[in-house]
Amino acid sequence: MPAKDIYHDSVRNALVKDGWMITHDPLRISWGGRDMYIDLGAERLIAAERGEQKIAVEVKSFVGDSVVADLEKAIGQFVLYRAVLAERDPDRKLYLAVPKDILQNVFAEPLGELLMKNHLAQVMGFDPQTDEIIKWIP
Amino acid sequence: MPAKDIYHDSVRNALVKDGWMITHDPLRISWGGRDMYIDLGAERLIAAERGEQKIAVEVKSFVGDSVVADLEKAIGQFVLYRAVLAERDPDRKLYLAVPKDILQNVFAEPLGELLMKNHLAQVMGFDPQTDEIIKWIP
Repeated sequence: MPAKDIYHDSVRNALVKDGWMITHDPLRISWGGRDMYIDLGAERLIAAERGEQKIAVEVKSFVGDSVVADLEKAIGQFVLYRAVLAERDPDRKLYLAVPKDILQNVFAEPLGELLMKNHLAQVMGFDPQTDEIIKWIP
Repeated sequence: MPAKDIYHDSVRNALVKDGWMITHDPLRISWGGRDMYIDLGAERLIAAERGEQKIAVEVKSFVGDSVVADLEKAIGQFVLYRAVLAERDPDRKLYLAVPKDILQNVFAEPLGELLMKNHLAQVMGFDPQTDEIIKWIP
């Protein structure tokens, strides 16, 4: 299993504060004998008649030297895991968890907007100081 | 600019043998002030009335410890560059160039097939021993 991201516990705490139950840490998915590990799986009761909402969350800190290289890696994981989840666990939505400064800079700049326009990411922004979720996109 | 892939010259030679003219090495693309470098740009006259065919080729050797990690990186570059090319140079098709053994193993196995089914890659397989293109998918 890959090493935990530096913000792993912060995202875990933020999800719990937001009413999510952590069900997997990590969430293992598999396709054709290849294993992949998404950082967290979580569930939340949305309304009695609508049942449970399920998510998978991959934590991305963007601490590398190059924002573009960090984006490439994050987007590659996102589209690969999403493709596998669509087959294995189609009700579970996938998010990239990114800290506030990355949300407000990288994902609000033209390259980030182009990714969102092309449906190449869904993003959950969190505040690593307060361990709180600040935004889900979309 | 990133370091050249170990198979860079092999792919360049294979394209030339196949009738392509190398026009960019690397091909720089840019969006919102962020620069990205695709390994090669090439053109070929397909038929007088249909004009020129243009491609961009990102060389991927898959020499890392983990096939899944190499795939994530390759797919992330592919979908990001494709999104930028669609805006900047929409007639240019993007391919990942992979050596024969990766073509026959990784891209023929279930995880590779899932990627192709989800349109997350176009692949050009080459033989690094003979510097020849062996397959375009699709």
